[in-house]
Amino acid sequence: MATTFRGIVPPVCTPLRDNFGVDVRSLCRTVDFLLDAGVHGLFVLGSTSEVAYLPDRHRALVMETVVDHVAGRVPVLVGCIDTTTLRVAEHIDMAGQAGADAVVVTAPFYARTHPGEIELHYRMLRDRTELPIVAYDIPTAVHSKLDSDLVLRLAEDGVLAGIKDSSGADASFRALVLGKRDRGLRDFAVLTGSELLVDTMLALGADGAVPGLANVDPVGFVAIHRFMSDGDSAAARSEQERLLRLFSIIDIGAPDRMGRGSAALGAFKSAMKLRGVIDNAVTAPPQVPLDDEEVKQIEAILAETGLLP
Amino acid sequence: MATTFRGIVPPVCTPLRDNFGVDVRSLCRTVDFLLDAGVHGLFVLGSTSEVAYLPDRHRALVMETVVDHVAGRVPVLVGCIDTTTLRVAEHIDMAGQAGADAVVVTAPFYARTHPGEIELHYRMLRDRTELPIVAYDIPTAVHSKLDSDLVLRLAEDGVLAGIKDSSGADASFRALVLGKRDRGLRDFAVLTGSELLVDTMLALGADGAVPGLANVDPVGFVAIHRFMSDGDSAAARSEQERLLRLFSIIDIGAPDRMGRGSAALGAFKSAMKLRGVIDNAVTAPPQVPLDDEEVKQIEAILAETGLLP
Amino acid sequence: MATTFRGIVPPVCTPLRDNFGVDVRSLCRTVDFLLDAGVHGLFVLGSTSEVAYLPDRHRALVMETVVDHVAGRVPVLVGCIDTTTLRVAEHIDMAGQAGADAVVVTAPFYARTHPGEIELHYRMLRDRTELPIVAYDIPTAVHSKLDSDLVLRLAEDGVLAGIKDSSGADASFRALVLGKRDRGLRDFAVLTGSELLVDTMLALGADGAVPGLANVDPVGFVAIHRFMSDGDSAAARSEQERLLRLFSIIDIGAPDRMGRGSAALGAFKSAMKLRGVIDNAVTAPPQVPLDDEEVKQIEAILAETGLLP
Amino acid sequence: MATTFRGIVPPVCTPLRDNFGVDVRSLCRTVDFLLDAGVHGLFVLGSTSEVAYLPDRHRALVMETVVDHVAGRVPVLVGCIDTTTLRVAEHIDMAGQAGADAVVVTAPFYARTHPGEIELHYRMLRDRTELPIVAYDIPTAVHSKLDSDLVLRLAEDGVLAGIKDSSGADASFRALVLGKRDRGLRDFAVLTGSELLVDTMLALGADGAVPGLANVDPVGFVAIHRFMSDGDSAAARSEQERLLRLFSIIDIGAPDRMGRGSAALGAFKSAMKLRGVIDNAVTAPPQVPLDDEEVKQIEAILAETGLLP
Repeated sequence: MATTFRGIVPPVCTPLRDNFGVDVRSLCRTVDFLLDAGVHGLFVLGSTSEVAYLPDRHRALVMETVVDHVAGRVPVLVGCIDTTTLRVAEHIDMAGQAGADAVVVTAPFYARTHPGEIELHYRMLRDRTELPIVAYDIPTAVHSKLDSDLVLRLAEDGVLAGIKDSSGADASFRALVLGKRDRGLRDFAVLTGSELLVDTMLALGADGAVPGLANVDPVGFVAIHRFMSDGDSAAARSEQERLLRLFSIIDIGAPDRMGRGSAALGAFKSAMKLRGVIDNAVTAPPQVPLDDEEVKQIEAILAETGLLP
Repeated sequence: MATTFRGIVPPVCTPLRDNFGVDVRSLCRTVDFLLDAGVHGLFVLGSTSEVAYLPDRHRALVMETVVDHVAGRVPVLVGCIDTTTLRVAEHIDMAGQAGADAVVVTAPFYARTHPGEIELHYRMLRDRTELPIVAYDIPTAVHSKLDSDLVLRLAEDGVLAGIKDSSGADASFRALVLGKRDRGLRDFAVLTGSELLVDTMLALGADGAVPGLANVDPVGFVAIHRFMSDGDSAAARSEQERLLRLFSIIDIGAPDRMGRGSAALGAFKSAMKLRGVIDNAVTAPPQVPLDDEEVKQIEAILAETGLLP
Repeated sequence: MATTFRGIVPPVCTPLRDNFGVDVRSLCRTVDFLLDAGVHGLFVLGSTSEVAYLPDRHRALVMETVVDHVAGRVPVLVGCIDTTTLRVAEHIDMAGQAGADAVVVTAPFYARTHPGEIELHYRMLRDRTELPIVAYDIPTAVHSKLDSDLVLRLAEDGVLAGIKDSSGADASFRALVLGKRDRGLRDFAVLTGSELLVDTMLALGADGAVPGLANVDPVGFVAIHRFMSDGDSAAARSEQERLLRLFSIIDIGAPDRMGRGSAALGAFKSAMKLRGVIDNAVTAPPQVPLDDEEVKQIEAILAETGLLP
Repeated sequence: MATTFRGIVPPVCTPLRDNFGVDVRSLCRTVDFLLDAGVHGLFVLGSTSEVAYLPDRHRALVMETVVDHVAGRVPVLVGCIDTTTLRVAEHIDMAGQAGADAVVVTAPFYARTHPGEIELHYRMLRDRTELPIVAYDIPTAVHSKLDSDLVLRLAEDGVLAGIKDSSGADASFRALVLGKRDRGLRDFAVLTGSELLVDTMLALGADGAVPGLANVDPVGFVAIHRFMSDGDSAAARSEQERLLRLFSIIDIGAPDRMGRGSAALGAFKSAMKLRGVIDNAVTAPPQVPLDDEEVKQIEAILAETGLLP
């Protein structure tokens, strides 16, 4: 018996128009592109979706579009990303109305927080919604780390249905996987946000992965998952290593001109445009766009890794 | 000639009811309490106002209530605190409709940022509104620091009307004050967020201060400002030192039970309640409340510093 | 063909007397304990050895004792841990005189540093010694991270003979392993400092591991290595998971009374004493010792994990 | 009654030869240059002295040279900078033998630390030496902050004779000054490491300042101190603002080529050479030197601020 939230669950990029409105047609094509590759779920309105850059009405449009377009074929997890409890609760209400299968929630941010307050945050939200709540551990964004003991305790109490671990702290990830097993939390989904260790994390016992790079090459990540299910870790490793090379596209945007977020999102979207998935590689402000030369370098890497002729 | 935004500009606490709704009557009493003390402006929806804890409809209620109640007697600055440009722009629209005199805007947060992106953020917002924009430098919340050269450049270009510096980096504050003078930026308001160095910062050339503790003792801060205007730095220092003792109320909440934000906001609100300004010391979730014993310690400090009989 | 520095290479704890002098007899017993378990090398004067707590004459005694006692049976790597180039160079001279097989060197610390300065640091030390230099990536101690591209470049240029990666950043670890293969750096040793992911890191292509916990259970780590060499990853995983449980001894020291270093070193040494390897669990000042109750909890965990009857 | 350690106490730069040995003649000239300007004490082997770059025998040469050359005219404080207690104790022994008037000691670094361990560190060192111990609060180097309550408690207990506060946290500095007064700690020296707020910190009640920039312009800092003693804060402010402009020399070294330490130390030494105080601007490895163009910019700033014709 597996958890509901498992396998390859890409955090779906949000295609935009030049006026920064959501490009709904490209978004639907992205969903098709991912489902055709065989992904096991979709995560909308996460960091890779530029959730922090989207006004509420854009967020609503994204979740409604994707839930509608997916039409139940795979679970749709919706990021409800905001600073603290009452604000997150409103996003959860919106997600529920849109038909989300689960919501994904970080620790408080901007406000200074504390482990006791993080626990209270999740417990209060649990009282507020019927939807499964997946904790989102992303210290680079929220500047605190979810403690694995707290997460497991909240899982036991039925507060959390899973965790998306984007902390990069793999020892704590292993503690989650082991703690899940020890406590018999079969329905608790342990998902890694790693793009570069998906084979490894699945070997350790992860239920699934949420790799941003799957927007560019979903077939590759689905293959890793299948190879690992089949016990062919050598094939999985080889595919993962190809994707590690592909991942170097995120380092092309010049560091003196833009942040690492702009470089990564710009690279994902440029690659998706080059592959014909989306119409426009624009990212939301104040992110800085890649220039033509940088896009050419991305094109070259796509060719080297077999994604362009 | 002074800037429009100057003097003592308290960041107004947001009184709440038990159900976490805005307590409008207590909010109006808080405004009266501050105006009666002679403050020179009000800053609503800042960190001390628990802005990160308030849903948009609560934010709207706060700004409309305060702008209406103040009725032009002093300028009202409104915090438009959200992660990135498009989201902040929506808050600015709301502030404009409510009649704000200026908006206060941080660097992007949650999303990884970059100096070039921070600059773009402010410039794009400048194109979007007629309202004066005050930059809000608060690294403990947004996890980046505004560079003083960038701030001065944006001031020269008319993008920024002022800065509220809560960075605690006083050398950079001095560079702002000196840069303002050197570049002849007479209308650019340099405000410190410090509560403990108001005399000092005014001596260095600050136009004003935005001390959270002024919610508890506005008369004290207004006195410091007047003493400094009158050239009586000894009296200002003595008053500041009394307030430094008062400020120890923020350390009473037990660190093993709550974060430093809970402890500070809980202390401010408990003190305001003890002084009869607000009806209820509740703070927004997931903040942890002070217990009765802790409130008694606050009461004792208020007595020692002359605020209770 | 494997690198010289490979397999399980424990960072050897430094047993102390009550007067904080080196307990040479216990040190020799520790070496025997580790060699009897079949470890492939020893790393003295690393963080787990309390190198930062040992005066130079204690450091000299440790390296001379261990090199002499090992007598060439396995390679002995010696940590030359100091703030900057000239100071490290003196430790390297001492290590050379003592007969070290390699030296282990961090990026500069205390002083603010820069990637260009880190590169210069290693290149200048390379000019200074014939001994192989292993880079030590330990951001929790030195507060900067070694860039994997820089490390690979220094490996290609013959400056570095290996890296001990205690950064916990496993994506960058994977980049090192892959970069080593792509560039044909067969003699370059990629060692993980992880205690909890040894099976995983070996599966990724690590040449070896330097787990502090091997001071307590070297047999377990040697077994993981052998299982992985034999292709039995299930057995390796099972053993690793037992060791993960054992590793919980480092969390017993009370956080309100001591730092995480005191708790970990105190736990390792208490466990070694309980197992009869060393005479005294004392740690160097200003570390805080575990109390009797805490030691009893460690004893219980040793029993649960099969290390005590 | 003033403390022994007060007034302007420059952290003395350590002039080096091309082979990175100490340039004793230039060091003596530096001491003369500073004493002629009227400084009230000297601090050798601090961060500005490149203490983290100097082998022990260079450190010994520096302290012996300066103590001997000063010959009791002003107090000489000696930095005993090393990772933990036993290592610091050895530096204190050396300082005592050299005739230091006080030693300056940071919290532990490299090793993970804890407030309880920091307290134990200072108390154990107090038991070890008769020399006055000045705590050195420098979070940018040691990555922890000294708590002002702890410092005041150690002062009351006779453990600490003073503090050099280079934390830049001026609210905590004010708490120190006020705590000193409240507790009647007349002999406890509160010194600021600020270069840009010396007038301000003296106004707040600091006993003195330890500004690195005083190596370049000791006359300026002595003038600020005298103006403040005379109650002429306007003159002090004007002089401080000139020095703030001078301080921009530390930003000239290109950030893509060197760290902020290299840029600052290189600038100080280049300026001292341009002023004829030292023979050679070389800094210790692995610091990166300024290039000719950068030195020309420094020359221009020295001319603008009245230090070169």
